[in-house]
Amino acid sequence: MNEKTFALKGTVCYNESPEKLSITENGYLVCENGVCAGVFTNLPEKYNGIPCRDVGDCLIIPGLTDLHLHAPQYSFRSIGMDLELLEWLDTITFPQESKYADLDYARKAYSIFAEDMKKSATTRASIFATLHVAATELLMDLMEETGLKTFIGKVNMDRNGPPALQEESAQASAQATLAWIQETAGRYQNVKPILTPRFTPSCTDELMRMLGEIQKEYHLPVQSHLSENLGEIAWVKELCPNTGFYGEAYDQFGLFGGENGPAIMAHCVHCPDEEIALMKERGVYIAHCSQSNTNLSSGIAPVRRYLSEGLHVGIGSDIAGGTSVSLLRAMADSIQTSKLRWRLVDDTLKPLTLEEVFYIATIGGGSFFGKVGSFEGGYEFDAVILDDSNLPHPQPFTSKERLERLVYLSDDRNITGKYVSGAKIF
Amino acid sequence: MNEKTFALKGTVCYNESPEKLSITENGYLVCENGVCAGVFTNLPEKYNGIPCRDVGDCLIIPGLTDLHLHAPQYSFRSIGMDLELLEWLDTITFPQESKYADLDYARKAYSIFAEDMKKSATTRASIFATLHVAATELLMDLMEETGLKTFIGKVNMDRNGPPALQEESAQASAQATLAWIQETAGRYQNVKPILTPRFTPSCTDELMRMLGEIQKEYHLPVQSHLSENLGEIAWVKELCPNTGFYGEAYDQFGLFGGENGPAIMAHCVHCPDEEIALMKERGVYIAHCSQSNTNLSSGIAPVRRYLSEGLHVGIGSDIAGGTSVSLLRAMADSIQTSKLRWRLVDDTLKPLTLEEVFYIATIGGGSFFGKVGSFEGGYEFDAVILDDSNLPHPQPFTSKERLERLVYLSDDRNITGKYVSGAKIF
Repeated sequence: MNEKTFALKGTVCYNESPEKLSITENGYLVCENGVCAGVFTNLPEKYNGIPCRDVGDCLIIPGLTDLHLHAPQYSFRSIGMDLELLEWLDTITFPQESKYADLDYARKAYSIFAEDMKKSATTRASIFATLHVAATELLMDLMEETGLKTFIGKVNMDRNGPPALQEESAQASAQATLAWIQETAGRYQNVKPILTPRFTPSCTDELMRMLGEIQKEYHLPVQSHLSENLGEIAWVKELCPNTGFYGEAYDQFGLFGGENGPAIMAHCVHCPDEEIALMKERGVYIAHCSQSNTNLSSGIAPVRRYLSEGLHVGIGSDIAGGTSVSLLRAMADSIQTSKLRWRLVDDTLKPLTLEEVFYIATIGGGSFFGKVGSFEGGYEFDAVILDDSNLPHPQPFTSKERLERLVYLSDDRNITGKYVSGAKIF
Repeated sequence: MNEKTFALKGTVCYNESPEKLSITENGYLVCENGVCAGVFTNLPEKYNGIPCRDVGDCLIIPGLTDLHLHAPQYSFRSIGMDLELLEWLDTITFPQESKYADLDYARKAYSIFAEDMKKSATTRASIFATLHVAATELLMDLMEETGLKTFIGKVNMDRNGPPALQEESAQASAQATLAWIQETAGRYQNVKPILTPRFTPSCTDELMRMLGEIQKEYHLPVQSHLSENLGEIAWVKELCPNTGFYGEAYDQFGLFGGENGPAIMAHCVHCPDEEIALMKERGVYIAHCSQSNTNLSSGIAPVRRYLSEGLHVGIGSDIAGGTSVSLLRAMADSIQTSKLRWRLVDDTLKPLTLEEVFYIATIGGGSFFGKVGSFEGGYEFDAVILDDSNLPHPQPFTSKERLERLVYLSDDRNITGKYVSGAKIF
């Protein structure tokens, strides 16, 4: 028996399927060597004597996965929200990201980010850093200490940026990426590198080709942006006249999932049918970033369609297009925008339900990390303890109602415990 | 000099116009006998010696007005959010509201509501109670103690409700309303009654006629719901075949603003042109409830149009169609949905700006209460102190950027002081 073998006792909630929640009140959730052994109404005899943390009336849910966010943007979240994507990038984001050339600044900013991520309900995340190798490694160091499991990417950009936030050439960008991969190899338990071409407008074909080669050699996953905004899509069409749709701009270099390695594409708000078909074929993970797509006036992604067609969908806070790191809030945002889409755009796609967004935020994104996001036996033991006692009410609620309330009303005060792969974070 | 003459020192922000914020750093905001005397960079000599509360780096903003919320629904906010309006009313709202026949239950529920309202940034509100007179008076007692200035309405409903939440007849409803008005007359400093026919589907023409007569006699304002949901509008058309549009169902009984007294109409999501013209003519106040209109899949109100046509617009949390009492959050929600409306429905109506939603939440709704919502001389002294020190950042921000951050990121922890009409709430 080791320190990663124990039980939690409380009201255990997780998805059995996208449509169905399993809720066990006064249940025992058993962790054996960091892996979930299942949920039991009575502790099986073989576990007699293992440590048990009784969280009383609290809910216990699987850890949540944030499939898309920008760590350097946390410092300026909620600033300049009256702007649309491309204007916001030029006037706020790029000047702010260029500050991460300064390691002292990066340490201040990333320390705040890492601390808030640690307190959140997020257990796994796929994170954009900036193009700066030293600051990216600092972010990796700080995130390693939190105990969260993350992919972190040094960003590649060799065109259309401001002078202060652009690499000198495709060659220079690719070499910096290689140096970063080699320097950090084997350094971390919790953090892994991910290739991160910012988006097609920021990366020349030559750079994309080089990144495709690096991917083949190092078998790294890829993260980028796709079909977020109409202006962006039109620009990509101009930049890549040989492509039929945006996704091909990645796919032609092997950076769109498939056999070379998995890919996360953030947003997917305005994907044409062919792009959706290719995402399905390549097993691309869609990071649905509802709050960001609202803040930047991008639109509303057809998540119901992605789910029913069997694509991989996870949830993303997209800091700082989104302003909140709370993935419980992101679940509520996703339900809300799906309702507006149903009302205003296409009433054949019904709004998302509580069960479905809970699935997306747990198993949907978690599966990018392996067996993550469920409490069925064999899954990595990622768990979050939610205490709703600061939200008084005069009448009894069912456990599902309590979960729904936490999705809409919780903040960091409600998150009172967290485990990642069996390790206690707090 | 009395206790309502003092100064606050801090960063003072308020709207000079819908498009322009006035921000004075290290400013003195002077209250003289409960009325604002203005904002000064140096304290004028005549105020030498008045008490001064120095709030350091905090922001000081006008108190916020919540033009529409249902106090009895606070207890079940965030429950059943996967339902649309009419289904949500039948399966959640009406059964829950019927519980307020029990005064013990009402005391428990309303005490939680009143305490949370007190802690919020709201200084003024127009509130629906239930049809129960005793519980409504209890709510008035509890809200009186908070020090907030509120209108509270005993609800009228004599048709289409469940047996447990419907008055026996128009006569019975009107008589209960009269008894309530007479019993509470002169009892409160802070609370005033407001006539509250729930909405047309809940009130027979006979009841509406009687309420019109009560209004004429007692000169009370009116609050109700208007053009929220397409199913509701179709139902009103069936119920009132003699009307050209929903608003006429109120107007034909004098309950739609104008000379008999002012009216607040919540939602106004799907108003036809004639209805908008009549609202303007009658000086109707529109309570814009963005979060609720999203949660109940109602749609997005054309607030930009209302503003540019010179209608009165305030903001409403619409608890529990909305889940949050925070009007700072409601400002962010209003910006966000206006962006989606611009993108998805009508790109001739530009998204709302930070300045505009700040105006709506202060002067826009505040003016229903008189000279309320500004720090210009002569306005009632309603002020809220916002402390953003728990939101660390590595770089300096302007005061406007700090205000924008608080709109998107604040919760009750950031609200560290509140004054209503010169009285200190905390």
